[in-house]
Amino acid sequence: MSFDLAETLDILGRTPPALDTLLRGTSSAWHANNEGAETWSAYDVVGHLIHGEETDWVPRARIILEQGENRSFEPFDRFAQFSRFAGWSLDQLLDRFAELRVANLEIVRDWRLTDAQLALPGRHPELGRVDLRQLLATWAVHDLNHLGQIARVMAKRYTEEVGAWRAYLSILNR
Amino acid sequence: MSFDLAETLDILGRTPPALDTLLRGTSSAWHANNEGAETWSAYDVVGHLIHGEETDWVPRARIILEQGENRSFEPFDRFAQFSRFAGWSLDQLLDRFAELRVANLEIVRDWRLTDAQLALPGRHPELGRVDLRQLLATWAVHDLNHLGQIARVMAKRYTEEVGAWRAYLSILNR
Repeated sequence: MSFDLAETLDILGRTPPALDTLLRGTSSAWHANNEGAETWSAYDVVGHLIHGEETDWVPRARIILEQGENRSFEPFDRFAQFSRFAGWSLDQLLDRFAELRVANLEIVRDWRLTDAQLALPGRHPELGRVDLRQLLATWAVHDLNHLGQIARVMAKRYTEEVGAWRAYLSILNR
Repeated sequence: MSFDLAETLDILGRTPPALDTLLRGTSSAWHANNEGAETWSAYDVVGHLIHGEETDWVPRARIILEQGENRSFEPFDRFAQFSRFAGWSLDQLLDRFAELRVANLEIVRDWRLTDAQLALPGRHPELGRVDLRQLLATWAVHDLNHLGQIARVMAKRYTEEVGAWRAYLSILNR
């Protein structure tokens, strides 16, 4: 088992400043570009990450710690950011994400989770039995998944502009 | 044509600090993880990016500006980092990448490239005719491609640890 709680929280703390470095102050040609109808821009992804901080990761961890498998998690709304953050600037989103992530990591660190607690079960509305360790690993991988998505969506601004080099750039062909 | 020179150089300037935020001080469980034999870790990718700064992007741009299609680019060695940077620490790699990128962007900005120059042709040893605008667009997309790769390789540390959530995490299944 390669899960390490401290290293997981370490990576989770890096996502907001990394996205800030990549996105704050960029032109909308970079951060509002998407991959076509019904797909997300970097801006949209940051809203989605905030919504996860507000309603998903720590609330679900609390359900596991307090109620175990007796209570199924609330389903996560993957489209909530479009109404929840309508009119927000990218800077506002980045600020909010950073604040919430710092606060949530502090909550989790203060729990001083034991191995026994990390093994506690929870019930996902679609996936069934999961445990707290899996929830925390998923939180980190979910960040990295969306970081990869942001890199891809931004890259696609230049799908045509790279000319013949497209053959070497796998990110443009996904 | 969506290519914008200033916006391209802007994004290129963000990659070293973004990678620094993501990687400096992480455990080797994050930055030395790879996807199996013959695949690269985040550490390996940073070496590759440095080698590109040293031998690829600006040197090729110079060939286009000075010699056009008359001279084919030197082939780029995609495995040079393994001998070139043997024994370097991750911190040394991150420092070197940041220094070289700043210097290279200064060189390109100082050229004050015109649209006519951006349209100048070059000859790629495998791909044939390219132009300077395409080279610069490719430089940026190449960064984003490897940023996405780093996110994926790091995520895969926890392929098993996320349990049933794997079904939702496309980054683990590429």
